[in-house]
Amino acid sequence: MSKGEEVVLLDFWASPFCMRVKIALGEKGVTFESREEDLFGGKSELLLKSNPIYQKVPVFLHNGKPLCESSVIVSYIDETWASPALLPPCTYGRAQARFLADYIDQKLFDAVRNVAMSKGEATEAAKKELIEILKVVDGSLGDKDFFGGKTFGFIDIIAIPFTSWFLAAEKMGNFQVEAEFPKVSGWIKRCMQRESVAKIIPDPEKIYEFVLMFRKKNGID
Amino acid sequence: MSKGEEVVLLDFWASPFCMRVKIALGEKGVTFESREEDLFGGKSELLLKSNPIYQKVPVFLHNGKPLCESSVIVSYIDETWASPALLPPCTYGRAQARFLADYIDQKLFDAVRNVAMSKGEATEAAKKELIEILKVVDGSLGDKDFFGGKTFGFIDIIAIPFTSWFLAAEKMGNFQVEAEFPKVSGWIKRCMQRESVAKIIPDPEKIYEFVLMFRKKNGID
Repeated sequence: MSKGEEVVLLDFWASPFCMRVKIALGEKGVTFESREEDLFGGKSELLLKSNPIYQKVPVFLHNGKPLCESSVIVSYIDETWASPALLPPCTYGRAQARFLADYIDQKLFDAVRNVAMSKGEATEAAKKELIEILKVVDGSLGDKDFFGGKTFGFIDIIAIPFTSWFLAAEKMGNFQVEAEFPKVSGWIKRCMQRESVAKIIPDPEKIYEFVLMFRKKNGID
Repeated sequence: MSKGEEVVLLDFWASPFCMRVKIALGEKGVTFESREEDLFGGKSELLLKSNPIYQKVPVFLHNGKPLCESSVIVSYIDETWASPALLPPCTYGRAQARFLADYIDQKLFDAVRNVAMSKGEATEAAKKELIEILKVVDGSLGDKDFFGGKTFGFIDIIAIPFTSWFLAAEKMGNFQVEAEFPKVSGWIKRCMQRESVAKIIPDPEKIYEFVLMFRKKNGID
């Protein structure tokens, strides 16, 4: 990183979307300042000013210039700090990666959260949907080490943070990802061996405690 | 385009997502074969095989290799046929363009369709939401000719096809985009002066007829 560069992340520890940005920065070897937002107390002025449309974390500030939406931020990081490349070098590979990342983005976390944050019949319905999505994800992974092949890259960064919420979903939905999706399970283990991932992904037990707190606060339990 | 290249689009005339791909190809001067899908009768084997996850148009086949999801396809077209560039040259500008395109993608068409395809109170609620979204879009446009400034580009291609559905939404929702959003209205006129847009965007009256047919078919009227 050039001297004098300022990289700031408006952050929240349990947000998988913030985790993506931190893992991408770790892969690139970019040092940054994380500013934890108080999402339940009051969001910072800087957050509200920088992300007026969604008012959500993560907000990424590069030399004061704000960017929002985690997939957009990860693409920006990949283009700004070129090495190691996160997206594949060929245009067709990049398009395929963006397609799958988009699918994971639109489907996986909502499904995981719906299992973790519901009860009764709603949990059963959400679990069925999550299992269908995991089948697609499992099929895309196939026998590869990572989604892009031998190397950890863009899709892995998009997807791996969601897995920190799996334990909470498993406990609420009474099922086990590991037993039903051994390929996904092996991929999680390989990702967790990377320093950039291991030091960012929180203990799933802590996410489970956060989910329990959230359920109580919102009258689900 | 290099000799021997084959560019095929699995298409549907009223789909704004297909229009995007056709406008992007027009901007790049790429000739292609459009194959109209029968979405109500039966989708082609090639569509089902090429887009097993969503089973939707557009599907883009470049020398037989399929790509799905219109934003992904437009990015691929921009990277494959370099001139004229649709996304801005600087990384920050590209990220901002992707952010706004994503917002328009996730919000605008659903809102337009919800006004066009509902009735009674649901139409009123959908209209309110559409107006809020148009305020954001209008603010992003500001006093610029196009979303990226002086030049027609990526965000314009993402957004302009949705405007062919405005007439149907206006008739169902009893309001006028032109009267309430003169900046958006001026931008539509400027886009329609481009050959790539004018020859692709269907007559809004035809979209309105399509909407009436769809409403009848689905028991809304």
